[in-house]
Amino acid sequence: MNLLAVGSVALDSVKTPFGEVSEVLGGSATYFATAASYFTRVGIVAVVGADFPKEHVTFLKTRPIDLEGLAVTDGRTFRWRGEYGYQLNEARTLETQLNVFQQFNPQLPPDYRTAELVFLANIDPDLQLEVLKQTRSPELVALDTMNFWIDGKREALLKVLGKVNIVIVNDGEARQLVQEVNLVKVGREILKLGPKILIIKRGEYGALLFTRDAIFSAPAYPLETVFDPTGAGDSFAGGFMGHLARTKDFGMSNLRQAVILGSVMASYCVEAFSLERFRTLHSEEILGRYREFKRMTHFEEL
Amino acid sequence: MNLLAVGSVALDSVKTPFGEVSEVLGGSATYFATAASYFTRVGIVAVVGADFPKEHVTFLKTRPIDLEGLAVTDGRTFRWRGEYGYQLNEARTLETQLNVFQQFNPQLPPDYRTAELVFLANIDPDLQLEVLKQTRSPELVALDTMNFWIDGKREALLKVLGKVNIVIVNDGEARQLVQEVNLVKVGREILKLGPKILIIKRGEYGALLFTRDAIFSAPAYPLETVFDPTGAGDSFAGGFMGHLARTKDFGMSNLRQAVILGSVMASYCVEAFSLERFRTLHSEEILGRYREFKRMTHFEEL
Repeated sequence: MNLLAVGSVALDSVKTPFGEVSEVLGGSATYFATAASYFTRVGIVAVVGADFPKEHVTFLKTRPIDLEGLAVTDGRTFRWRGEYGYQLNEARTLETQLNVFQQFNPQLPPDYRTAELVFLANIDPDLQLEVLKQTRSPELVALDTMNFWIDGKREALLKVLGKVNIVIVNDGEARQLVQEVNLVKVGREILKLGPKILIIKRGEYGALLFTRDAIFSAPAYPLETVFDPTGAGDSFAGGFMGHLARTKDFGMSNLRQAVILGSVMASYCVEAFSLERFRTLHSEEILGRYREFKRMTHFEEL
Repeated sequence: MNLLAVGSVALDSVKTPFGEVSEVLGGSATYFATAASYFTRVGIVAVVGADFPKEHVTFLKTRPIDLEGLAVTDGRTFRWRGEYGYQLNEARTLETQLNVFQQFNPQLPPDYRTAELVFLANIDPDLQLEVLKQTRSPELVALDTMNFWIDGKREALLKVLGKVNIVIVNDGEARQLVQEVNLVKVGREILKLGPKILIIKRGEYGALLFTRDAIFSAPAYPLETVFDPTGAGDSFAGGFMGHLARTKDFGMSNLRQAVILGSVMASYCVEAFSLERFRTLHSEEILGRYREFKRMTHFEEL
C-alpha cells in the first residue's frame, strides 16, 4: 500500500447556521482517506465500536480505501458534537465522548507496515510515535496536531516532530507551538524542530507552505455556500498526501500542486454536511476546480 | 495631471508593540499619493492647518506630487491617535481631532479638473460627490469608505457608488455595506450598486478583486517585521491606481498586476512608522518584491 492514515473514525453531531445533523459519519482518518482516495489507494488505522453503522463501512468500501486496519471493539464509537457561528471559522465543541477511542492502541496490519507515505492525524503524540515504530522506513511522514497536545504533551510531540518530514497545522496551532505571532518567524522556528516542510492552514484564507528557502502562498477557493467546515483540514491533508503518494515526486513544483489539490478537496468538503459531497464528487470536477484556482491566482510578470 | 487624490493629510500619534511615535506625517491622501508617486505624477486635494510642519511639505515635494490642491487654513491640522495590539490587524482609535478638516471644502485647482484617474479616499460621501462635480469626466474613479459613513450617510454613499468605477474597501466594510457575510455574495451585491470593479483588502491575508465574471486572489507579502499597519490600505490604493494611471490599460490582466503592485506598496508601508520606509524606497525594490510575489504564488497546470 502506498499511503496509510492513522486517526479517528467518528460519529459527529454538527450544528451550523444552515442546518443540523446528528451522528453522521466523521473523524480525521475518514475525511483524510476519502479525500486521498481520489488519488491513490489508502489504508485506515482507527477503531470504532460495535455500534458503528454498517452503511458507513459500505460507503468507505465504495472508495479505494483499505479497512483492514479499522478495528471494531466492544463499546461505543467515538462521538463529537459541535457547532459553528456565522463566521464558520472555528468550531465550538459541545461534547466529546472518547468511548472506544480511549483505549485506542493502533496495530498496523502486515501490509500496512511498508507504506511509503504515512499521515499521522491529530491523535496523542505517544500513539503517533507507536505507529511510526511499526512502519518500515516510509519515504514521507506527515503529522497534524492540536492545542490539546501542544499544551499537554509537549515533550512527546517534540519527539515525533523530530521524526516526521511534514507538519500540517492551522495558524493558531502553529503560533502556539513556537510561542510566536509572526508567521514567517513561526515557519522558521517550526522547521528547526525537524520537519523539512511546514503547511499552515488558514481556513477561508488559504494555506502557506514553508521550506527552508521558499514560501508558497495558496488562496482558499471563494465559495458561495459553505455549509459545514468540519473535516476541511483533514480533506486538505488527504488531497495533498494523496497527490504525493500517486506521483512520488517530492520536489517543490509538485508540492505546490499538492497544496492546490488539498485546497480543492477542502473546498468540496465544506459544501455539504459530513462526507456527503464526496458521495457525488467526480475526478473531473477536481481537475476543473484546480484550473479555476490557476485562473484565480494568475498574473503576468511586469 | 494624470491622477488626483482627495483625502486627509494628518498628524498621527501611533503606538504599536514595537514602539511609539507622536505627531508624525499621516493621512489617507498622503499615503496614497506617496505610494502612487512611484508610478506617475499625482495631485493632492486636502487641507492642513497653519501648524503643519514645513518639513512634511518639503518631503512631499521630493516626490512627483503636486500640492497646488493642498489648502493651508487658519487653525490646527487634523490629528489622529491610535494603537495596535500584537495581532496588528485593527487600530484602536484613541482620539480624533478633526480641526481644520471639519470645514474641509475641497476645491480643485483648474489643472486638476481634467485628471483622468481620481481616487476618493475615505471622507464624507457628500464631499466625494462635490469633488466629482468639479472633475471633467475622468476615465476611472475609485472610492474608499468606512463603517462611519456606511452607517451614518448611507444614502449619500449609495449615490457616489453609482458614479464610481472601482470600490476599494476592507472585508469588514464590504460585509457591512451589503449586510452579508459570505464574500462571494458580498462581491456580487456590491457590483450591483454601480461599480464594475470591487477590491476587498484583507490585511495580512491579501486582497480579492471582483469583476462581474472573474475573481482574482492575491496574497499579502509574508513580512517578518510588521512595524506599523497605519496607511497600508491607502498605500495599496496608491500602488494600484498609480500603475493604472501610468499604463492607461484597464483590462483584466493589467488590473491583476495593479493589485500585486498595490500589495507591494502596502508591504513596504508597514515596515516602518509613518511614511519612513518611502523615504528610502527605490523603484528597483518594488520590481524585486513584485517578482517575489510571482515566485510565491506560482504553480504549474496539472
